[in-house]
Amino acid sequence: MSHISEPTVRRLSNYYRVLEEVAAEGKRMISSHLLAEREGITSAQVRKDLSSFGSFGRRGLGYHVEHLRDEIRALLGLDRRWKACVVGAGHIGTALLGYRGFADQGFDIVAVFDADAARIGRTLEGLVVRPVSQLSARDAFEIGVIATPVRAAQEVADALVAAGVQGILNFAPRKLRVPPAVTLRTVDMTMEFESLSYALTHARAPAPRRRRAPQRPRG
Amino acid sequence: MSHISEPTVRRLSNYYRVLEEVAAEGKRMISSHLLAEREGITSAQVRKDLSSFGSFGRRGLGYHVEHLRDEIRALLGLDRRWKACVVGAGHIGTALLGYRGFADQGFDIVAVFDADAARIGRTLEGLVVRPVSQLSARDAFEIGVIATPVRAAQEVADALVAAGVQGILNFAPRKLRVPPAVTLRTVDMTMEFESLSYALTHARAPAPRRRRAPQRPRG
Repeated sequence: MSHISEPTVRRLSNYYRVLEEVAAEGKRMISSHLLAEREGITSAQVRKDLSSFGSFGRRGLGYHVEHLRDEIRALLGLDRRWKACVVGAGHIGTALLGYRGFADQGFDIVAVFDADAARIGRTLEGLVVRPVSQLSARDAFEIGVIATPVRAAQEVADALVAAGVQGILNFAPRKLRVPPAVTLRTVDMTMEFESLSYALTHARAPAPRRRRAPQRPRG
Repeated sequence: MSHISEPTVRRLSNYYRVLEEVAAEGKRMISSHLLAEREGITSAQVRKDLSSFGSFGRRGLGYHVEHLRDEIRALLGLDRRWKACVVGAGHIGTALLGYRGFADQGFDIVAVFDADAARIGRTLEGLVVRPVSQLSARDAFEIGVIATPVRAAQEVADALVAAGVQGILNFAPRKLRVPPAVTLRTVDMTMEFESLSYALTHARAPAPRRRRAPQRPRG
């Protein structure tokens, strides 16, 4: 397995979701066409993405749902559990603690920290908010989630690095500096808004011909 | 301008941020190398992305910062304002209302709705929470943001469509159905966690040789 680009990793995440749904429905096989349709991409793209890590597809039969799901799960590192902490017990931090999807995917948020004395000691989703000064290597967190105001984010990133995390998920809208050995992902909510803005701007000028393209009779 | 893929739109958003920073620093020109370095991609990728919408680069001189920034801003539809509402006044909704970055990019959140009687009438970031039953075409929202629990999300999406929004930004971890004329973007926070998980899993097995690759003397 060579390097996989981040957009490909995103598509694999999406395939994984579809495969989980389809497995829950009791289906054994899925075609590249159906995977493509669910994701709004071409089936050629699906075959290319999936060919890159083995030949799961059988011509005319499609992919074995559970096999492919398990392979993608392992590839994404979801076949194990990650020990994570959240720094920042405000609205974003609280929303993350309450988000069941994380635990389902193997991300265990086991601690929450804040710098605000008014928040320290409160219980959020079963976790007592601890002072951020207690952040240390003792807890052996693998992933740190930054949900602080922008002004505190770099300092918290430094503290997480000092505490030995391998990865940081940053929700503060600011570029952070971390050493090369630490992986950083920043969730920028403005980017999604911009992607929407781009689509809306360009949906108007040229009429959406593609929607009307299929000339074959339906039903 | 032909179709631009979503990953390209994401990179353009990133270039836009860098260009804003560099403009604020008073620089007039920027090279594809510097843009690439800031984004952690190749300069060939930068030139390819930017060539697709005109020739702003001058060989040896780079790109004119303000010109390129303004062109990308217009392309992304950020040279106008969008009238948006948020449905769901819980933690995510409240966090979004307090997020200044949106207004800076032209997204005006002008109303917030909730179905919970305990929340209706409260003031959040200067907006009085309105009952979701009041959502109607009268307000002429262009974008609706869904920040509700999963179980309410499809119903809210239907109400937003009925109220005439052109785009929906969905924070509920669920696939929603909307008519083709409405653009939907779903912010899936698990995806970012999975991208991190992938990177951490594969950062360990093969040593990160690329970091050590440059053999040229430095300084």
